[in-house]
Amino acid sequence: MTDGGDPIQALVRLLSRLPGVGEKSARRIAYHVLGGDPEYARTLGEAIATMSQRVRRCESCGAYTTRARCALCDDPRRSAELLCVVARPMDADAVERARVFQGRYHILHALLDPLGGVGPAEFPLQPLLERVAREGVREVILATPPTVEGEATALYLAECLHAAGVAVSRIASGVPHGGDLEFTDPITLGRAMEGRRSV
Amino acid sequence: MTDGGDPIQALVRLLSRLPGVGEKSARRIAYHVLGGDPEYARTLGEAIATMSQRVRRCESCGAYTTRARCALCDDPRRSAELLCVVARPMDADAVERARVFQGRYHILHALLDPLGGVGPAEFPLQPLLERVAREGVREVILATPPTVEGEATALYLAECLHAAGVAVSRIASGVPHGGDLEFTDPITLGRAMEGRRSV
Repeated sequence: MTDGGDPIQALVRLLSRLPGVGEKSARRIAYHVLGGDPEYARTLGEAIATMSQRVRRCESCGAYTTRARCALCDDPRRSAELLCVVARPMDADAVERARVFQGRYHILHALLDPLGGVGPAEFPLQPLLERVAREGVREVILATPPTVEGEATALYLAECLHAAGVAVSRIASGVPHGGDLEFTDPITLGRAMEGRRSV
Repeated sequence: MTDGGDPIQALVRLLSRLPGVGEKSARRIAYHVLGGDPEYARTLGEAIATMSQRVRRCESCGAYTTRARCALCDDPRRSAELLCVVARPMDADAVERARVFQGRYHILHALLDPLGGVGPAEFPLQPLLERVAREGVREVILATPPTVEGEATALYLAECLHAAGVAVSRIASGVPHGGDLEFTDPITLGRAMEGRRSV
């Protein structure tokens, strides 16, 4: 109803492009920003606007960092022989939260997706191969997601890494912890059966 | 896992304060901002930061507008005799979307909430009373929400407006359209029974 509609509508449209934010939540957020503390809005706005200038990618693993190399790559307690390859920084965060991995990460920031314009020519394979050779990596764990693009990427990387003479493994795919078989999709169940282990 | 954690963590904390944004979605949004188009992040950030400077409240009804008075208050087709009182700008938007109201709005930007620090002394009653007198309002529809604070506000406003000699009505409360009686809470059902109309 407001004609002040213009700046508000513009903000709603911008907010709607964020992941998980629909038109309704965008509107709610816009009104919250308007009705709330202007100092908070200024701080949040500046944090968003300047983030890409203050944060860069670790020159070694690709994680977000404020320095040339991230803390994890500089941590001598993390084994350089074991490398976990993930698609996105948040995937590495998820593995870290599980506290089961003591090696280092390599963040692709990409998945093989020929239909989406990322074929072998566009895919950032070279930095990974160079790193494996440079740091004496012995095993690479492929932790790309169990999706079509993630599986294609894992398959492609497995071939290239085998040729480089390094051990390669793939994270297991199956029924998640606490999951219900009744509501598990057939592909997942198929993978869970295929990947069964003797007990 | 990133030590670039600082600016990212700061952004996640700021984002978590937005309505409907939990820690997980805040993290997702932060990574989206980082991994996406820097120009988009700059535009969004500036829109958030400067919104409160570009948008103000209509001096007549309190709606957000870029001018002194909003388009709706300046629209001669909207009756000045009928006034719909709401708590927040988004509530007026919701009534507008229903296309059932041809009068004007009055946005309180507050509800009576003595425990929350808004007693009769803090409540913005005077602007409403002055507006009713100045614009020759005949009927006030109280469309504050059917919550404890909304009902208290409606009761308080009804008293004050009756004293000012104006007709006062309250929006109906009951089972929503498409609602299931089985899953309707007892208070709503009680109101639906109380507010029944002969057919």
